[in-house]
Formats: sequence, structure tokens, C-alpha cells
Amino acid sequence: MRNMSPVLERGYAEELDAADPLAGFRDQFALDDPGLIYLNGNSLGALPRATLRRLETVIRAEWGTALARSWDHWVDLPTRAGDLVGELTGAAPGQIVVADNTTVNLYKLACAALDARPGRRVIITDRDNFPSDRYVFEGIAAQRGLELRMLDTDIDEGLDAGQVRAAVDEDTALVSLSHVAYRSGALADMAGVTEIVHAAGALMLWDLCHSVGAVPAELDRCDVDLGVGCTYKYLNAGPGAPAFLYVASRLQETLRQPVWGWFSQRDQFAMGPAYDPAAGIAKFTTGTPSILGAAAVEEGARLLLEAGLGPLRAKSMRLTGYLVELGEAWLEPLGCALATPRDGARRGGHVTYCHPEAKQLTGRLAAAGIVTDYRTPDRFRFGLSPLTTRFTDVWTAVAATRDLIKGGESHD
Amino acid sequence: MRNMSPVLERGYAEELDAADPLAGFRDQFALDDPGLIYLNGNSLGALPRATLRRLETVIRAEWGTALARSWDHWVDLPTRAGDLVGELTGAAPGQIVVADNTTVNLYKLACAALDARPGRRVIITDRDNFPSDRYVFEGIAAQRGLELRMLDTDIDEGLDAGQVRAAVDEDTALVSLSHVAYRSGALADMAGVTEIVHAAGALMLWDLCHSVGAVPAELDRCDVDLGVGCTYKYLNAGPGAPAFLYVASRLQETLRQPVWGWFSQRDQFAMGPAYDPAAGIAKFTTGTPSILGAAAVEEGARLLLEAGLGPLRAKSMRLTGYLVELGEAWLEPLGCALATPRDGARRGGHVTYCHPEAKQLTGRLAAAGIVTDYRTPDRFRFGLSPLTTRFTDVWTAVAATRDLIKGGESHD
Repeated sequence: MRNMSPVLERGYAEELDAADPLAGFRDQFALDDPGLIYLNGNSLGALPRATLRRLETVIRAEWGTALARSWDHWVDLPTRAGDLVGELTGAAPGQIVVADNTTVNLYKLACAALDARPGRRVIITDRDNFPSDRYVFEGIAAQRGLELRMLDTDIDEGLDAGQVRAAVDEDTALVSLSHVAYRSGALADMAGVTEIVHAAGALMLWDLCHSVGAVPAELDRCDVDLGVGCTYKYLNAGPGAPAFLYVASRLQETLRQPVWGWFSQRDQFAMGPAYDPAAGIAKFTTGTPSILGAAAVEEGARLLLEAGLGPLRAKSMRLTGYLVELGEAWLEPLGCALATPRDGARRGGHVTYCHPEAKQLTGRLAAAGIVTDYRTPDRFRFGLSPLTTRFTDVWTAVAATRDLIKGGESHD
Repeated sequence: MRNMSPVLERGYAEELDAADPLAGFRDQFALDDPGLIYLNGNSLGALPRATLRRLETVIRAEWGTALARSWDHWVDLPTRAGDLVGELTGAAPGQIVVADNTTVNLYKLACAALDARPGRRVIITDRDNFPSDRYVFEGIAAQRGLELRMLDTDIDEGLDAGQVRAAVDEDTALVSLSHVAYRSGALADMAGVTEIVHAAGALMLWDLCHSVGAVPAELDRCDVDLGVGCTYKYLNAGPGAPAFLYVASRLQETLRQPVWGWFSQRDQFAMGPAYDPAAGIAKFTTGTPSILGAAAVEEGARLLLEAGLGPLRAKSMRLTGYLVELGEAWLEPLGCALATPRDGARRGGHVTYCHPEAKQLTGRLAAAGIVTDYRTPDRFRFGLSPLTTRFTDVWTAVAATRDLIKGGESHD
């Protein structure tokens, strides 16, 4: 890219947009407000137009007209959608199903893992893991009289595999960590950490909520045991869409989850007298799944797969790299501290800064039509979604942040 | 109603429709296929037009345009929708929340109840309870080393309170039964059974899946402890819409559910280091709720409340009574055995018959545009939804069933 504008000028961002092979995907989303710069897709992803059409079909034709007869094809939707999520996360078919929410899935898989490691009394996670993860494990540890060991991860630099190695021992049943950290955006070494955990004889449960759709995972290749993730962030499946769970094929026969529901029964509609768990991944579901939600997951996953995992990660890294570069020039000199790894290979799809007035800043950015989000105690996040975020959005948002901080200095 | 047509003539059904004060509600549903007679609302209820409009708003405007900013009002939607379900079930506000599916809710509340009765080792349910209920309790009993005691309910006459009295003792922690039985449609004596269970010092968990929206419940007045129910049957909230759960106010402080998620945390967005359960009913939720589903529950509940609980039950009883009357004349002489209480006061909203060819019959009825459903081993159900089912639908369906059985005798 020769003869480009200087990096800090808006023209440079426009040139990056013009050269972006994924730029056309933005038109496939219902982002119709030209005054909105939405950098919060890491919280709730945008609405794909295909999903709007699909949900209209599911609601009007499948529910409204065909009614209960649609269960003939709805019944497999959670596994069909799960297989698509598998393509996004490096899981061969039959290992992922769309079901429940992330919290319930964490609970089911953690219980299954602990039952598979009787006598071992330690669960390990990290102190900066997402709250629901920590709370679920805290609850299970309390209920079973186990120890929850919390790693003190450096929340800006992310998980250090050496810390995991130092923490696991022959008493460790389960280690659960996030692939991308929700606050810092730090990307964990899935292969390295999983290997360390396995060497100690424990099971590894990865939370992919903040990576799926922005950062490729290689669940099978990394020999991961268990995984969960949500679908309403980069997967764009809508508010409260169901989550997914992964159980490696090699473990599906032996593991058993605690919530024995009729959708996890072998011959579900025989409604037999005793529970007889289904073969395969269905065993890890519970009751009736959300059909609207699973349909939206299918559409969201298709759109990401159409873009391709390589191009998605490449654009994600270009977006975050550009933001970090602008931030170095404009935000860090104004008292913003980068709270995300500076090395692009160690980042996910969002970039976080610390600033004492982070909360007020996100409010004032929102008032200016720039949606980012605040995280306690002093952090604000820019979520950059490779299918919808433009480089000019990044430029505008960082410039506006700079101006607000400068303005705040003189006015507040 | 003098000068009416003879009961078995279609004209009689037409006169009942003409006199039906709820007849106008059918137009508020997207039942646009004039060739369809849908008597399966006890499996999946029809699509209310208000829900179609509401979901379009939630999808296009709230998700598509306002995006994550909509969480400001979404966050309370599950409790707002829950309070409306409370109006349908006799529960004062703050005791019901829309969350998860019925299976997960059964699991959470059963675990909470068992923890509140330490030392007691028996869970009681009935052998004909819905499969997911039985499987969940079977799983919990296996995991905790408890006894699951199964009542041999007469599946045609329903639960006998005397059986419950004979089964409970000082070792009983929890009794869980269905308010309306899923196969027979038999209606249980909620007040009487709850009192018997309390006299033994146990907790009572009612499953309202097959009653809510057709049969009023009086959860508070009956001093019920815990309840669950789904929303996709008579509540018309759509396929896989989230379920609800009830925890009596007097128990909310002391009970604790096992799945500790961020939506059940006191100050959720502080994302604090340790789990501190929210006050009130939110404590019994888990992770991110389905927003589309909760919005549909709100619309479905509003429509039922507009019709009124008294008129709903009155029409439901008239519909089932009329069907039983036609069945007595036309089906019972042809080898169909009524598998629902003959006494209208002991029935819910559906009527079941046994016939050796029940499965084939439902298939042939469906081919004729009459949707009923089959339940193992030899039963077929007519689900009569007071907001959408016409008396002429009942007449046509029973007449068609009669003709198919007669035809089957000669041809098959």
C-alpha cells in the first residue's frame, strides 16, 4: 500500500476501508443509522439481514402457519447450528450443540468433568475470568466441598501458561479459562495450556464467548475436552440467543451431565419410564431449545463462514492494530493506559483502555453516537467486529475519545 | 339456549360458536389457513398477531437499530413477563421470573428444595408425570443418593390425594407433580395435595406446563412453595420460548439454587469477585435470558389476561365437555376409550382417547388438515385452546375421527 495518506489522517482509514476485502459484508447487516458508530459488537452483535428474513420465516411460516408440525425439522436444528459453530471453532461435526445459556452450559460441563475425576478436589480458573464463569465454579465448589483455585492473571497481558503449569497438580480435576479475556481482550494459548492441563491429568474447559467469530479456535487440534460459548457477540445471533457447548467425541460416551431432560433422552418421543441418555452430543442438552435462537445462530454462523476464518482474523488484527496505533498517538499521551496486549497475535477482537473517567467517557461517547462499553472499575472497551466495523469507525471513535478527554480537561 | 339444533349436528356447534364470548380472540392469531383445524395448542400454541408485531419491533428496532443500548429495558423484561404470568397463576408480583427451560428450572428448584430439607432422603413424583420431570428427579436422586418414589397414578382419572397422603412421610423432602397431567389431562387438587405435603414437612413443586393459560392456578392461595411451567402451549409464546419459575416470597431469602450465574448476582454489572445472590426472584435465574422469548411471553400473557381467567376456564370446560359428549356418541362405540376424567371439573384443556391405532389415526387426521397429537403407546390427544379453538373445529375433528375409524374398518 504505497502512496497512502499519513497514518493519523482520516484519509488513511478511508484507504484501509477501500482495500478491505470484507468491506461488503457490512451491507448484509441492518445497520441503517448513518449517525451510529457501533463498537460494542463484543457485547451484542448487529442484526444480519439474512437473520431478519430467517426469523420472519420461522415466526410467520414455521410457527404461525405450520405450527407444531415444524418440529419435524426443528428438532435437529440445535445440532445443525452446532455443526456450523464447529466449523468456526475447529470442531468436527457432532461435537457442538446449541443449547441453554453459557452459564447453564458451564454448570453442566463442569459437573460432568468433576464426576469424571473423582477424588480430585480442585477447580482452577482465573480471577479475571468472566463473572458468570467464576460464580458457577464458586457455586459448584461450595456445593461439593471442593477448592476453587484462582489464578492471578495479569489482566492486561493475559494468561501466562507458566502460571497454569505452576497451579495444576494431581489434585486438579478441572481447569476452565476464557480463550479471549472479556476485559483485556488477551488471547490465551489454547494448545499450550490444554497440554499442561492434560499432563496433570485434569480436564480443560474453554470459554469461547469473546473469541468465536473473531478469533479462530482449533478445539479438535488442541485436543480440548470441553467448551462453551455465547452467540450474541461476534456470532450476531441476537439478545439472549442460546449458547453452545462442545464435548470432544472421545468423551461423549463416558461423561454424563447432571440435568437429565427429555431432549437428552435416547428415544425422546417414546417418553419411556427411565432416563437413557442419547448417544452423542444430544446427551448434553436439557429441555426444549429456543428455535428462534437456534435459527439465528445458524444464520450468524453461515455469514461468518462465508467471510472465512482467515480473512476474519486478518481483518480483526488489522482493526485492533490500527486502533492501538491511533491510541498510542492520541490516547496514551492523554492518560489512557492500554489494557490489552500490544502484540497483535496475543489479542482478540476488542481493545481496552484504562482511564480514571472511563465511565463518564463511554457515556459521552454514546451521546455522540459512538457506542463502546464500560467495564469496572476504570476501563472502556472498543469492540471491533470484522464483519461490520470500518476503519473509519475506528478513526472517528478514537479521535472523538481524544477530543472528549481534551475537552474534559478544560471544561470539567 | 333454547331452540338449538340437536347436539350432534354441526348446526349446534355453529350456535355454540355464535354464543361464545371469546370467539373474537381467534382473529387476534395468525391462523390464516382456512383448511387447517389445529387441535394441538397444548403442544405448540398459535402465533398471536400482537406477538408478530412485538417480535418485529424487538428484532428490527431494539436489536437492529438500538443494539446493546436496549439492555437498559431488556434487563427487567424477564421479571415483568413473570409478573404477568403471576396474574395467570395466582402469584403476587415478584415471585415468578421467565428463565431457562422447564427442565433447567425443575433442576434448580428441586436442588434448592432438597438443600432446604437436609437429612430427608425421598423425592416423590408420579409414574405418569411428564418425562423431563421424571428424568430430572431421577438424575438428582442418583447424584445425591436419594430415593425417587413414584406414585402409580391412575392415568385416566388422575392423581388421588389419598395416594399422596399415603406416600409422604418424615423422610420426604420434595413432592413434585403436574397440575394437569400431560397424557390424560386430569387436573390435580393443588390446594389439597399441597396441604398434605406440608403436613409432612416437605416442599411442594407444581409443574404448570399443561395448565397455565387454560386452567387458573392459585399458587399463593394454595400456599405452594415452588412452581415451573412452559410458555409455548396455551401461553402461545412460540417454539422453545423460555419457561417460568415460581418461588414463594417467604422462601426466597432462605432457598438457594445451584447454578450461580451473573443474572442472579446482586449487583450484576459490578462484576464483583464473589457471588452474592440477588434479593428476590432474580436469585433463581442463571445467565443471559432470551429476550425474543421473554417478549413473546409478555404478549401471550397479556392476551390471556385480556380474555380473563374466568371466561378462559369456562370456555375450556365447554370445549372439552362438548368433545366428550360427541366422543361418547361417536368414538366410544367405535372402540375409543376416554382416557381423561369424565367429570369436567377434574379436566384441564385437552381430552385423550385410547385406540389401538392411535398413531395411524393422528397421521391420517393430519393428512386431512386436522392436527392433533399422538402419545405413546395408544393415545391421541385433542388440545382445545380457549382463545383459538372453535366448537365447529371440535365437531369437525370428532366427526372426521369417527369417519376414519369407520373407513379404516372397511379398507385397512
